[in-house]
Amino acid sequence: MYEVEVKVPADLEAVRDRLEALEATPRGAVVQVDTYYDAPHREFAETDEALRIRSERPEDAPDETRVTYKGPLVDDESKTREEAETSVADRETMDAILANLGFEPAATVRKDRERFTLEGYTVTLDSVDDVGEYVEVETDVDGEAELEAAREGAYDVLERLGLDPDDQLRTSYLGLLLESEATGS
Amino acid sequence: MYEVEVKVPADLEAVRDRLEALEATPRGAVVQVDTYYDAPHREFAETDEALRIRSERPEDAPDETRVTYKGPLVDDESKTREEAETSVADRETMDAILANLGFEPAATVRKDRERFTLEGYTVTLDSVDDVGEYVEVETDVDGEAELEAAREGAYDVLERLGLDPDDQLRTSYLGLLLESEATGS
Repeated sequence: MYEVEVKVPADLEAVRDRLEALEATPRGAVVQVDTYYDAPHREFAETDEALRIRSERPEDAPDETRVTYKGPLVDDESKTREEAETSVADRETMDAILANLGFEPAATVRKDRERFTLEGYTVTLDSVDDVGEYVEVETDVDGEAELEAAREGAYDVLERLGLDPDDQLRTSYLGLLLESEATGS
Repeated sequence: MYEVEVKVPADLEAVRDRLEALEATPRGAVVQVDTYYDAPHREFAETDEALRIRSERPEDAPDETRVTYKGPLVDDESKTREEAETSVADRETMDAILANLGFEPAATVRKDRERFTLEGYTVTLDSVDDVGEYVEVETDVDGEAELEAAREGAYDVLERLGLDPDDQLRTSYLGLLLESEATGS
């Protein structure tokens, strides 16, 4: 499975109004807390991989935790990666397993997310602690042959929301957080 | 948490009769399929650690999968290790995450297990494919101070089942399987 994802900085208030005008389907809000790990045997910053434990607190539902591996970007056009993700019962135990194997927590990203569905895409409004406000438009496809069409569709959705695909950022929230910490901004 | 576990080879039919005579509480039977992984950055055989994905098929219940880290033995007297284990939703995805991180499947152990409770201990009758029949007596304790008494209690249980604590094996089923494959027996 491939994830096609395009992200741009945005004024979330304005995007929320456009989503309402376009009658996008609200999918609820969550708080996400993501811890990213360093590997003992590879430099993930160089191999362009990531290992993450994510806890998500939906409105009116218990916390969910998932562990995720993200592989390197597969093209230059969008944030498309191979991804493997499964739910785990207990965040602290999964952290202990990784720590015992030599994987150390590198950084934690916390954000409020609101999700909508529009024209088959998931549109996510993110307010990221210490980083800023962003909109992500994404979808999943089964094979590489479908990537190009999915990406074009994501650009169309951005434009309908009053956003410019040329503003696309390929830096992850983790990367943006580390940059912001490095510059002290 | 520490796991105190004593394992001896046994004739399961005879032990089953003793358990019945002692009115041990049957806890059901499961099929367990365990895959053990090699690490990319450590020789687990040397560090005496293990990383495992276990799928368990209880009678009349859906499969359960757990990922487990086992640390080195903490004493010379029994198979006592520090352990971290949590459920995961999908075995294949967890395997894909580990494979992407460089952890390769080393061996798979399949066994039929019947569990009983006797005097606060879990007594497990194991029939292990290509390895043989064994009985394990185990319990969990919170701290090292309780290990000695828990171990003595496990020996008492073995004796009541007609088994000899001196027959204790510290080799894991994985180790026994690898030995059996190495000797071609």
